[in-house]
Amino acid sequence: MSAPATNLAQFDTVRLDRPAGALVIIDQTLLPTQISLLHLKTQAEIWEAIKTLRVRGAPAIGVAAAGGLYLAARELADLAYPDFRAGVEKAKDYLDSSRPTAVNLSWALRRMLRCLDQHAALPVPQIVESLYQEAEAIRTEDIQACRAIGEHGLTLIQDNWGILTHCNAGRLAAVRYGTATAPLYLGHERGMRLHVFVDETRPLLQGARLTAFELSQAGLDVTLICDNMAAWNMKNGRIQAVFVGCDRVAANGDVANKIGTLSVALCAHHYGIPFYVAAPTSTIDLATPDGGSIRIEERQGVEITDLWYRQPMAPAGIKTSNPAFDVTDQGLVTAFVTEKGVVRPPFQPAFREILSV
Amino acid sequence: MSAPATNLAQFDTVRLDRPAGALVIIDQTLLPTQISLLHLKTQAEIWEAIKTLRVRGAPAIGVAAAGGLYLAARELADLAYPDFRAGVEKAKDYLDSSRPTAVNLSWALRRMLRCLDQHAALPVPQIVESLYQEAEAIRTEDIQACRAIGEHGLTLIQDNWGILTHCNAGRLAAVRYGTATAPLYLGHERGMRLHVFVDETRPLLQGARLTAFELSQAGLDVTLICDNMAAWNMKNGRIQAVFVGCDRVAANGDVANKIGTLSVALCAHHYGIPFYVAAPTSTIDLATPDGGSIRIEERQGVEITDLWYRQPMAPAGIKTSNPAFDVTDQGLVTAFVTEKGVVRPPFQPAFREILSV
Repeated sequence: MSAPATNLAQFDTVRLDRPAGALVIIDQTLLPTQISLLHLKTQAEIWEAIKTLRVRGAPAIGVAAAGGLYLAARELADLAYPDFRAGVEKAKDYLDSSRPTAVNLSWALRRMLRCLDQHAALPVPQIVESLYQEAEAIRTEDIQACRAIGEHGLTLIQDNWGILTHCNAGRLAAVRYGTATAPLYLGHERGMRLHVFVDETRPLLQGARLTAFELSQAGLDVTLICDNMAAWNMKNGRIQAVFVGCDRVAANGDVANKIGTLSVALCAHHYGIPFYVAAPTSTIDLATPDGGSIRIEERQGVEITDLWYRQPMAPAGIKTSNPAFDVTDQGLVTAFVTEKGVVRPPFQPAFREILSV
Repeated sequence: MSAPATNLAQFDTVRLDRPAGALVIIDQTLLPTQISLLHLKTQAEIWEAIKTLRVRGAPAIGVAAAGGLYLAARELADLAYPDFRAGVEKAKDYLDSSRPTAVNLSWALRRMLRCLDQHAALPVPQIVESLYQEAEAIRTEDIQACRAIGEHGLTLIQDNWGILTHCNAGRLAAVRYGTATAPLYLGHERGMRLHVFVDETRPLLQGARLTAFELSQAGLDVTLICDNMAAWNMKNGRIQAVFVGCDRVAANGDVANKIGTLSVALCAHHYGIPFYVAAPTSTIDLATPDGGSIRIEERQGVEITDLWYRQPMAPAGIKTSNPAFDVTDQGLVTAFVTEKGVVRPPFQPAFREILSV
């Protein structure tokens, strides 16, 4: 199901439509050509939407999975508690299997299950109500976290700077504002003249299709470049800072993010340009000691060889390697920008302090 | 005019068909979908073919321009010497205006004009004959230089290595063998198991369309990756050396090559991976002191925003920056591989020695 729409800012990237029993998302595979809303009702629809990147971005898939698990619980509300819990746990494992790298997905699902267990003494319909409240809390907290990341990030940039970003850590990767883009939106609102350079981000072009789209719709000055042009723009003095998002931050500060982030970080390091990672604390995973422990999703080669899975760009049958993410070493990260403040090295103790563990 | 064909190895990338009065090229804008030969007869056709990258690659456009200038001279063979020379010089300036960055274009054209001047005392038809011989010499020397680059380059690589290349410095960028690919072809012929990683090379995908195509047609083990994946493959130990071509080498060793080369060089430098530049000596330009003096061609943004100029990949009207080349600092280059041997730093005196100046 889809409905036509024209202005991105009218819509949250993900929301629950409770009366309809649906998760409502913007279908990001159709952007920027078409703004189309999808009303997802079944677990299979939600799983497919996450898997095929109709909804993507670490914060957004966490919010989507939480909403999806609430919808699963709602369907099971007539069961006795043991069957109800078993059914919800099965749905959790199913949604969790859609994508492996971003921690927010499993973080949000674990939080939902913890909520269920905390309310185990209540009648099942009341547990379902608690799960709705929890899913909404995860969503609301994401909006607030992005806003706070914007405020903290804004202390790191100056008027007239060129800012490079990679992939989409924008409003389309969260509910509103985005993570890496939050300081840019906020700076723009407050009259700063920022010059945003957007890596197109092959193979799926989230930079070209999503980031360039959402920032230019909001009136920011955007220059779209190919991924391989970032270094040259840095060398020529056009970029004063890099802001990227992240899918999982290990306890030592190693960062999994969209493939190509490592390359940007290496180039920024070489030219002495600060490299900032916008990270809601939900993305920091103290259970993962370092980047070597992060599972990197390998996706189909057709994403590289055929644009939109149908327009050949390479010889038929050619072998490919298509990791969706890479890991940037903590030593290349200038600072993390979280909703609780800017975190500088050494990251390990700083994370433990900010997460109060 | 075009004729269908199926196997790349049957054809030189550029050759003169003297009886027909045509420059015969493979139309590289149609690869890999279609191998089509173009018979170019007018100066406007040749200029357009170079400008729109139907023939591209520094050595190949030098050979094409020399052949083109011979065809121009042939058309003017009935004129008296002063008008003949003026006409040829005008054709030279015209062809020279097709692309600014690669030095081989102007180098080959200057060499042709020098040949004309050396034979000024002869009747015009005999000067035209000398120009044919010179154009053929440029073409033959390119084949020999690539072969010699292959032999010298082969001393730098070992069995089972992973080798990264960027853009196309292959047979399609020269007449045969290619520059950066020459050691790969030669190693493969001699039974080495090389694992070639090919950057797709946005925006025009010369890596995906041309390099992956020609190397896999020749039976080499090729893995196609997006440009932003090179660093991750390096970090994971899959790449033991980088070989790229070049469009102009400055006297100090700074290298202009396809956009994205700088990024590859920075990443290789970080991981201690040797970065080799295959360079026929015709590409070394002692008249250019350093990279800051090289004019970088800026191409249309539509190459980034629309695949094959027609399939939108980004929001309509978005601002872009589309430099076709970048400059890699000499400090990032491990060695140049020329037809006269491997040149190591300090490059300035080594170039003067190898060029005997």
